[in-house]
Amino acid sequence: MREAAIAGIGMTDFGELWDASLRQMFTEAAVAAIEDAGVDHIDSMYVGSMTPGLFVHQEHIGALLADYLGMAGIPAGRVESACASGGLALRMAVLEVLSGASEVVLAGGVEKMTDGVDATDALATAADQEYEAFEGITFPGLYALMARAHMEKYGTTREQMADVAVKNHTNGMLNPRAHFRRPIERADVLTSNLVAEPLRLLDCSPITDGAAAAIVTTTERARELGVPVIRVRASAMATASLALHDRQDLTTIPSVGRAAGRAFEEADMGPDDLDVLEVHDCFTIAELVVMEEIGLVEPGKSGEAVSSGLTALDGKLPVNTSGGLKSKGHPVGASGIAQIFEIVEQLRGDAGDRQVEGARIGMAQNMGGSGASCVAHILEAIS
Amino acid sequence: MREAAIAGIGMTDFGELWDASLRQMFTEAAVAAIEDAGVDHIDSMYVGSMTPGLFVHQEHIGALLADYLGMAGIPAGRVESACASGGLALRMAVLEVLSGASEVVLAGGVEKMTDGVDATDALATAADQEYEAFEGITFPGLYALMARAHMEKYGTTREQMADVAVKNHTNGMLNPRAHFRRPIERADVLTSNLVAEPLRLLDCSPITDGAAAAIVTTTERARELGVPVIRVRASAMATASLALHDRQDLTTIPSVGRAAGRAFEEADMGPDDLDVLEVHDCFTIAELVVMEEIGLVEPGKSGEAVSSGLTALDGKLPVNTSGGLKSKGHPVGASGIAQIFEIVEQLRGDAGDRQVEGARIGMAQNMGGSGASCVAHILEAIS
Repeated sequence: MREAAIAGIGMTDFGELWDASLRQMFTEAAVAAIEDAGVDHIDSMYVGSMTPGLFVHQEHIGALLADYLGMAGIPAGRVESACASGGLALRMAVLEVLSGASEVVLAGGVEKMTDGVDATDALATAADQEYEAFEGITFPGLYALMARAHMEKYGTTREQMADVAVKNHTNGMLNPRAHFRRPIERADVLTSNLVAEPLRLLDCSPITDGAAAAIVTTTERARELGVPVIRVRASAMATASLALHDRQDLTTIPSVGRAAGRAFEEADMGPDDLDVLEVHDCFTIAELVVMEEIGLVEPGKSGEAVSSGLTALDGKLPVNTSGGLKSKGHPVGASGIAQIFEIVEQLRGDAGDRQVEGARIGMAQNMGGSGASCVAHILEAIS
Repeated sequence: MREAAIAGIGMTDFGELWDASLRQMFTEAAVAAIEDAGVDHIDSMYVGSMTPGLFVHQEHIGALLADYLGMAGIPAGRVESACASGGLALRMAVLEVLSGASEVVLAGGVEKMTDGVDATDALATAADQEYEAFEGITFPGLYALMARAHMEKYGTTREQMADVAVKNHTNGMLNPRAHFRRPIERADVLTSNLVAEPLRLLDCSPITDGAAAAIVTTTERARELGVPVIRVRASAMATASLALHDRQDLTTIPSVGRAAGRAFEEADMGPDDLDVLEVHDCFTIAELVVMEEIGLVEPGKSGEAVSSGLTALDGKLPVNTSGGLKSKGHPVGASGIAQIFEIVEQLRGDAGDRQVEGARIGMAQNMGGSGASCVAHILEAIS
């Protein structure tokens, strides 16, 4: 039975990269991952990207980016599951390695969001076009509905949501690749511009350019390469209804519970085994609901857990040590791989000022749209 | 070692389906494939679609379509490699089955092209946006360059290209699902409107709506299901430079030769072993170049081979018995799976008036854009 491992990682700085095109960003991240792994070729490649067609009017980027990487010839395809495209790319690379078809596969993610189009309109294509986007609701609006439901059902407060943003900015301050490296306070969040009641500007992740890449191979090959062996203990995906109106309860995101549950089953472990997590905090309320779906806390208890410091860098279970999507930035197709970058750095002990002492097992949870899709990976440092 | 097989197939009629949305078409094809295989569930799903974001302003269709299929919960992602998206979806399903992660995986393809947007502009995103599309060249223009080069280098004639279209319409007449079921003659092609010199309207595949689906499982499971076992002998992909200006010779499409070569190597066979082929005839010149790349004929000999009847339904090696993209229609993301539908019908002996007697081994060759990506599958009927 083959086992998959991550042998190399690379990423660009995240931010408004006016001087970098999609192909330049991807190539920079991919070359960094290849050099980090110390491989001299890749057998195959997957690129996660949500909508380069709408953002930069370019599809067919699997072939394009293989060409720019100097690898024209290899199999190279793009995968998409809205903001979970990066996680899906990693899953494809893992499955390809496990199938025996390839030994060394690159999984990348990229999005160029700041170059002209209406990003809110492009992102709305991740929601149900016929029943949601067409009616005028945008992503802040969809997550605002979830936030309001969570507040009503559990008494979750605006202050608790704000504390998610404060924590993630605190972590992002320590991440040289983060989009927003500045501290914010609870009052800043609570007085920032209202976007979609009850969500305010500082509850929302930003529009960001960036790319990230990882090299997936077998644990055996990773050992031969002499790199720290980060084994992929689980690669799981799940879906749920796309339209919010088809969900039983707006305080849940069922795809997350399903994907995390499958991942824990595959890895034969549970939430208590995790040392560090990267979760999909596209909005502050998302991080709270995701914590409950993964089983880090009971339903309704996520707000107080964050405010109590449970998930802070020095807490019992650090979440989003990278700064998360909120502070690190959210180039949608790249975010899932950037989470892997952070978890691998943590498990290698290379996270510098953000290092979680003794981190050995980590989870990356990446979701699409308002949570119709979710990809969860569990990684473990093995010697 | 697991072996993959195709246990079920389904597809919509192809055409201008004004009454059917993307989600309706996909669901119709997927349900047909599921019923054909006789399975009561699927473990996972891949959807090939080139640009639903541009065509119908809807991304995230993996999750959306799993939901519409009544399967919300399962892993479901979209894959894209321009017009090779369908072939890529099948490859993903095959790799997932071979990896052991799943037993029954649906591979679908869908495109809704006729509902409002400028299809030529949307399709141009499969070419290099910065160096080709931005300069104003469209796909007929790109293939016209290849046609002119082939005529110059090998003396290929307009009449030979026209004969590709005539043959494919002759076959499409016999296909109840084809978009254009009418006979055409060489003179019709040669006098049809000029699109991009030397290509004329009847050299071009049409803008079509449609969907197709296939159920991939293990050969063992297919036997248990009691369906004809169509083994996947090879699943190969390759790429080449996206921009034509980076190719050594415009009379070749290197990705096709690479993908076909890998497929033959994987299946341990050669062109002579094939009984029937579906190839990517987005333009008549494409079918000619592809025949040479696959090795059915020597470079430069494809035109006379077609005119001599080699690839006719009653010829030695029938190509595009379905009518091909030219007559059956070309809903870009669906075409790769529709090719599989035809090959499976042929290998089952279910192709009716189009049946190739004794067909046992077939190839489907699906390519993206001007050939920067190509996916090739070899299927074999086993008892």
